[in-house]
Amino acid sequence: MKPIDPKDKNEHIPRTDHSAASDMGADTPMLDTISSHLIQAIKKSLEKEDKKAIKKLVEPLHAADLADLIETLKPANREQLVKFLRPTLDPEMLPELDDSVREEVIEYIGIEQLAKALRELDSDDALSIIEYLEPDQQHAVLHTIPAKERASFEQVLTYPEESAGRLMQQEVVVAPPFWTAKETLEYLRKGTDLPESFYEIYVVDPRYHLVGAVSLNTLIKADEDKKLTQLYNEDLRAIPLTMDREEVAYLFHHYALVSAPVVDGKGRLLGMITADDVLEVIEEEAEKDILQLAGVTDTDFHAPFFETFYRRVGWLFIGLVNTMLAVTVIAQFTSSIEKMVALAVLMPVVATMGGNGGMQVLIVTVRAIAMRELRGPNTQRAIIKESLIGALNGLFFALILIGIAILYYDDLGLGFVLAGAMIFNMLWAALAGVFLPIIIDRLGFDPAVASGPLLIASTDVLGFASFLGFATLFLF
Amino acid sequence: MKPIDPKDKNEHIPRTDHSAASDMGADTPMLDTISSHLIQAIKKSLEKEDKKAIKKLVEPLHAADLADLIETLKPANREQLVKFLRPTLDPEMLPELDDSVREEVIEYIGIEQLAKALRELDSDDALSIIEYLEPDQQHAVLHTIPAKERASFEQVLTYPEESAGRLMQQEVVVAPPFWTAKETLEYLRKGTDLPESFYEIYVVDPRYHLVGAVSLNTLIKADEDKKLTQLYNEDLRAIPLTMDREEVAYLFHHYALVSAPVVDGKGRLLGMITADDVLEVIEEEAEKDILQLAGVTDTDFHAPFFETFYRRVGWLFIGLVNTMLAVTVIAQFTSSIEKMVALAVLMPVVATMGGNGGMQVLIVTVRAIAMRELRGPNTQRAIIKESLIGALNGLFFALILIGIAILYYDDLGLGFVLAGAMIFNMLWAALAGVFLPIIIDRLGFDPAVASGPLLIASTDVLGFASFLGFATLFLF
Repeated sequence: MKPIDPKDKNEHIPRTDHSAASDMGADTPMLDTISSHLIQAIKKSLEKEDKKAIKKLVEPLHAADLADLIETLKPANREQLVKFLRPTLDPEMLPELDDSVREEVIEYIGIEQLAKALRELDSDDALSIIEYLEPDQQHAVLHTIPAKERASFEQVLTYPEESAGRLMQQEVVVAPPFWTAKETLEYLRKGTDLPESFYEIYVVDPRYHLVGAVSLNTLIKADEDKKLTQLYNEDLRAIPLTMDREEVAYLFHHYALVSAPVVDGKGRLLGMITADDVLEVIEEEAEKDILQLAGVTDTDFHAPFFETFYRRVGWLFIGLVNTMLAVTVIAQFTSSIEKMVALAVLMPVVATMGGNGGMQVLIVTVRAIAMRELRGPNTQRAIIKESLIGALNGLFFALILIGIAILYYDDLGLGFVLAGAMIFNMLWAALAGVFLPIIIDRLGFDPAVASGPLLIASTDVLGFASFLGFATLFLF
Repeated sequence: MKPIDPKDKNEHIPRTDHSAASDMGADTPMLDTISSHLIQAIKKSLEKEDKKAIKKLVEPLHAADLADLIETLKPANREQLVKFLRPTLDPEMLPELDDSVREEVIEYIGIEQLAKALRELDSDDALSIIEYLEPDQQHAVLHTIPAKERASFEQVLTYPEESAGRLMQQEVVVAPPFWTAKETLEYLRKGTDLPESFYEIYVVDPRYHLVGAVSLNTLIKADEDKKLTQLYNEDLRAIPLTMDREEVAYLFHHYALVSAPVVDGKGRLLGMITADDVLEVIEEEAEKDILQLAGVTDTDFHAPFFETFYRRVGWLFIGLVNTMLAVTVIAQFTSSIEKMVALAVLMPVVATMGGNGGMQVLIVTVRAIAMRELRGPNTQRAIIKESLIGALNGLFFALILIGIAILYYDDLGLGFVLAGAMIFNMLWAALAGVFLPIIIDRLGFDPAVASGPLLIASTDVLGFASFLGFATLFLF
């Protein structure tokens, strides 16, 4: 049993007193799965080239922790460690590595050992590695794999990316409907080719159509002579092969599933998806959403320098185009600004506040779409609620701005111009915040992708245009 | 077996042909768990007050779908439906409701029926409802619950909010270490008070100290006369009661767990956490992070109008303070702007680009901290990488801006000023983006909370100050 406190040594009794006590305080220490102590010890042993010491340090590690350790080391140390461990490297570690670090590690271990490792993994883990290989590497690896396994990998590679078919493992436990609980348990006890972990038995007909599922705890609790047909779970949900992985995650979350079968268009069982795969998906998709809403592409933390630079520059360029649009608007009003320099001073206020207000509405709307909360009469209610709040926000800050204009510039007219522009832009921001993602979603695109930059572009342009426009109309 | 395609009727054979076929296209239809068809049918039956028809429509629904249906209805219909269903309302539906809708529903069903429902739920689900009740409601409900159960709820309510103790269910399966696989299976078959679903058996000593865990599939596959001590899972991890729920989610994700035991400071078993609880946590925390990074508070989609308004206005006010700070900086340079109105036109560029660039770095850093990727030499490497990229970004856009200044204003001096300010602000933005969350994290706070607004405030102020300052110094 591995304790979770990194300071503890491996023992069979959980020693949580220590960590629980230190967790009691307000400033909970960051729980870390590999200690800096361990990292230091590994580095020292690498310097001394002490293979025995390294193996002793690495052996008790969980595959996910070994992956973390490898990621944490400098590239030179990384190479050295992987080459030391090569003959006994835990294959389970490979799917845990970040893509760019994994590329490095694969270079060190070579295609042949990679192919050997892949055959030891569950099919979903193996696939998650194969799908990111360079085409020639993919080709080479697939050719060292026996024909039957190769065919099944090649089959899965034809499924759409990010579909349930790519997420599932093909290793499942199946049984015919006429077996009794006792027969099924006997089969499981004697079974040699069972997946390492499973939570349900899938019941299939002779042509492999899924007809039901029985959870392990139902099976164990059942009378020995009950037939499987009498034990079907009430809430089995078969996931179509082509379902998008975000939809799969939504179903797992919505129905609190721990595993679910995947079927093809004819209802034949192809594999299963388990909750741990879904945790991965949810983390990745949440990260993607955050980055996209802020107008950032998703950047791998370990990505090489120039890759990161190119991606960032691309998105910043879109930002520049947005800004130049706003600048062009401002340029139309140079003569007004020359007449009254206070306009230049105050003009960022309306644009910025509109952007902030719009982003609030936008994010809430994007999340509501993702959580399937926007449907039926809810959509209409949301639109009415958001526009009213937008108007009220605008009114609230309009009053504050009138106060500021009087206090600093002693100019009620300027105050009214600021106030009018603020109400106008806040109302627009609220409407854009709720309509933009709904429209993008209805068009069949991911509402998180373009809505952030589009919204900011519109609130900037309208913010500057309304403030400077109203000033030009009413103040001179 | 419930099909996932809402157009299908409940049958025992999965009819996925249809949904799989329609999912094939590029524009995958949004999978919906309750159809608008169903909503319309419910509304019609409510109008006719046809209780029988309503029951028939609602009965086959999963608790999570019933909750969705109730959320989707107008408040008047909601009240009517809940009151119709009251005597037979599925208690499992309550934890699935949004907090503000649940408040309404509890009003309709009354405290007594609430108490009855709570006793039928797993302890974690019941607790998730109790902890959000008003103090007097909480008191009233707890008093209708038998003393023994009440004591255990009251115990859990003393655990820190958002801790593992609040997340766990107390219903677990325990066994002594000397039992054989056969004995354990017998016990499970005969057991009457077992939790509805479980994936592991926890092995405890007579004083309830956790000494190991055996997964159901290990137990089933084992030789009948093997002792439990020989079957312990290799990667059992005991979670301390006080661990923050975000840490729990990280562990589940990192080690691909499906369930884990929770222990107190002395290593005694208190309950277990399952992957479906963790899915919930990850969704909620991801949403909180997105909202906070954008400087938005987390707003319940179903929250009442004025509650939403107050929260939004509060955050927007912080935005206004930020903007006024920037405005104050601009106001220092009015005489320069009067001399050269092009400054007013171009000044948003540097500030905005700095904000965009900084947010990119910030979000990547916040995610890297959450994923425990920033440790040891990685921190130093990240800082160096980000500052270099920031400088390079600055240089890239500086060149573009020099081009723009020459093209539109035919003024190389203005171009150099723009370029200098851009490099300065982009470099600052990159450093702030990486240091701000690291510092906030080291101080023991959540790096997602304040870092967004702080970063934008700094890039705005420095963006305007550097551009207008350099212009004042070098152009006149």
